[in-house]
Amino acid sequence: MREYTFADIEIGLQESFSREITLEMENMFRQISGDENPLHLDDSFAYEISGGKYSSHVAFGMLTASLYSALAGMYLPGKYSLIHSLEKLSFQQPVFAGDTLTVEGKVVDKDESLRLLRIKAVIRNQNNKTVSNTMMKVMVMK
Amino acid sequence: MREYTFADIEIGLQESFSREITLEMENMFRQISGDENPLHLDDSFAYEISGGKYSSHVAFGMLTASLYSALAGMYLPGKYSLIHSLEKLSFQQPVFAGDTLTVEGKVVDKDESLRLLRIKAVIRNQNNKTVSNTMMKVMVMK
Repeated sequence: MREYTFADIEIGLQESFSREITLEMENMFRQISGDENPLHLDDSFAYEISGGKYSSHVAFGMLTASLYSALAGMYLPGKYSLIHSLEKLSFQQPVFAGDTLTVEGKVVDKDESLRLLRIKAVIRNQNNKTVSNTMMKVMVMK
Repeated sequence: MREYTFADIEIGLQESFSREITLEMENMFRQISGDENPLHLDDSFAYEISGGKYSSHVAFGMLTASLYSALAGMYLPGKYSLIHSLEKLSFQQPVFAGDTLTVEGKVVDKDESLRLLRIKAVIRNQNNKTVSNTMMKVMVMK
């Protein structure tokens, strides 16, 4: 876990990590959220409703977005992180169990008075396709 | 689970539900995200880093945001939902294990050509304090 303080951080600082999405993660997310939607469970429903575009059920977008929590809390800035907001969170490609996602974040702005970072973040799959992106505001508490 | 089609939905339609945040949910979210930040685990760290503001560890913001997945996937529109984006997601108050959160969503716009809804959504705690809010764009696939 990184332990960047606000003073340590320069605009342009980048961090990244990768994580595989598994059926077990999907099952846990279903329990947490209470979202039993068949798009995220039933392969044949996902195939039919997407007009054949999705060959199997799709991972919850908000599950993949949980990786932005890890980006801030573990990497950028790490230990002294408090997420303030996601200015915009956009889902662009479906994610399937077995995909390996790479999360990249880059500091694009520092607000000294509020101790806030703006972090441009993107998640790509193993084929280098962007599956989601966001702009996060993260407070650094030290 | 609601099964609203795009044609069924009128601007102003509202849905809501409530859910308690538990330590078990926090543990599962930690496994999913890989976010081991002590703010979400260690009561004394949370107390110290917040200058005494948080009396115990704080639930992950992105865990509470998983309830927006359930809002779209189960309630508004329910079965035929596909989340497109969260235009802005803002965390305003800490959430603690044992809190009961109420999620409310209201359709504020329909884009006929893209089959997209704009849904204004808010999560409040048991003391009626807003803990987060967002504006979601959700596609209705039928």
